[in-house]
Amino acid sequence: MTETRPAHAARLSRREALLFEAGVKLGGVFHQYLGTPVSPRTAGPLARSIAAAVGLQPFVRDVRVRVDPRRGSPTGRGRFAYRYLTPEMLDVMVELVDGPVSVEARLRHRPDLRYPLMSVERVGRPRRARRTRR
Amino acid sequence: MTETRPAHAARLSRREALLFEAGVKLGGVFHQYLGTPVSPRTAGPLARSIAAAVGLQPFVRDVRVRVDPRRGSPTGRGRFAYRYLTPEMLDVMVELVDGPVSVEARLRHRPDLRYPLMSVERVGRPRRARRTRR
Amino acid sequence: MTETRPAHAARLSRREALLFEAGVKLGGVFHQYLGTPVSPRTAGPLARSIAAAVGLQPFVRDVRVRVDPRRGSPTGRGRFAYRYLTPEMLDVMVELVDGPVSVEARLRHRPDLRYPLMSVERVGRPRRARRTRR
Amino acid sequence: MTETRPAHAARLSRREALLFEAGVKLGGVFHQYLGTPVSPRTAGPLARSIAAAVGLQPFVRDVRVRVDPRRGSPTGRGRFAYRYLTPEMLDVMVELVDGPVSVEARLRHRPDLRYPLMSVERVGRPRRARRTRR
Repeated sequence: MTETRPAHAARLSRREALLFEAGVKLGGVFHQYLGTPVSPRTAGPLARSIAAAVGLQPFVRDVRVRVDPRRGSPTGRGRFAYRYLTPEMLDVMVELVDGPVSVEARLRHRPDLRYPLMSVERVGRPRRARRTRR
Repeated sequence: MTETRPAHAARLSRREALLFEAGVKLGGVFHQYLGTPVSPRTAGPLARSIAAAVGLQPFVRDVRVRVDPRRGSPTGRGRFAYRYLTPEMLDVMVELVDGPVSVEARLRHRPDLRYPLMSVERVGRPRRARRTRR
Repeated sequence: MTETRPAHAARLSRREALLFEAGVKLGGVFHQYLGTPVSPRTAGPLARSIAAAVGLQPFVRDVRVRVDPRRGSPTGRGRFAYRYLTPEMLDVMVELVDGPVSVEARLRHRPDLRYPLMSVERVGRPRRARRTRR
Repeated sequence: MTETRPAHAARLSRREALLFEAGVKLGGVFHQYLGTPVSPRTAGPLARSIAAAVGLQPFVRDVRVRVDPRRGSPTGRGRFAYRYLTPEMLDVMVELVDGPVSVEARLRHRPDLRYPLMSVERVGRPRRARRTRR
């Protein structure tokens, strides 16, 4: 830790600061990648590059990204037979850890809510050490 | 409140859930708008459209956006004499409120850290009611 | 014109160079703004800020942007009752002029093609001078 | 070719239509990815995912993407020691082919112009068949 000043002017517990950071990560993924051209063949590389980018950010221990283009609307034909990334295609799980505290959050389209929900799935102790380097 | 199921699988206090939501908003702004062409003349409309977009999102009571293109690198000449939005130009303050709890957070480039810092500025009771409709 | 070297290594007529530039503008709009939160109330400010940004770019004489959120899928309820900008909502017309040559191009979702089509609508002499400053 | 109506209302030669399409591709890359977290370790996967996305688009035969994070400004320290993608880091070459016509275009930051220049490098016959599948 090279940082000497706390990041926040408000007094926050580690747990609270991690919750804020988890929101930053998911909000960022949602707004960075929508509109990227994607097909079943490129969904894997796209998911890996999203995971790699999120994994660079502070406190991130684990990140899992799935991109499923088939969840989008029907494609056009011929040269138009591919899709652009839409929220329904995305499923992103991120775990952030700071010392003894772990926060897991998820971005996933919820058809019942007609909304790309970002939610906190778990707050607790870290799962066993595992550093995703996808 | 039309929602019947809680958004989070984890048990969170209102304060904790708002901290997560505040991160979502700032992470989203950062990753949505970078690269937008901007000049001193268009900085105002751009700032207002960012504020309007953030203001639509859940729990947002107030949002203030400043875009200062002069904080970017020198521009080119002639037809190249404009800039693209970079993190140094952005200063975004957002207040989220849920019942008696208020969270204020800010995105601002910190030259001393060489980093676009997102931080929680204040957690407490809401300031007097004010609904930004910029 | 302060530029002394031609922009292109290939030999291009003005008409050809403008066609390239028109593509740059429409491709940029498509990939910059998708995912922006939008509602009927904020569609106007968003459209104006897109038009202002495009209007800064080289050769652009006129730009008209319409954002129609009602063309998106149904919204969620309560706090989820807003949308994110999708291609179906966008209709962008841009005119570029270089001396005696004018190119008009358009980005518009085509339901028959299930595709956000970018197309060249007209190449010819400039329409009467008019500099959009939206 | 499953398309039955021409894409453009204006009468365009193949060469002209390809020039427009080349602009669409480069404008799109510029505005989609800026702000993505990137480090020397993730620059390769990011470049490959950009190339894969561009390669899905109509008429694209070849695409080469380099991302060089070291061209960005100095990073912060500790947990802030990574960068966000900026125009200086990008070098994108794309070749589009339609029948006997090939257009090669490039996006590259030009320090002498202080500008991320998109330019047409070559128009002519296609180079030998080669379909990039990065």
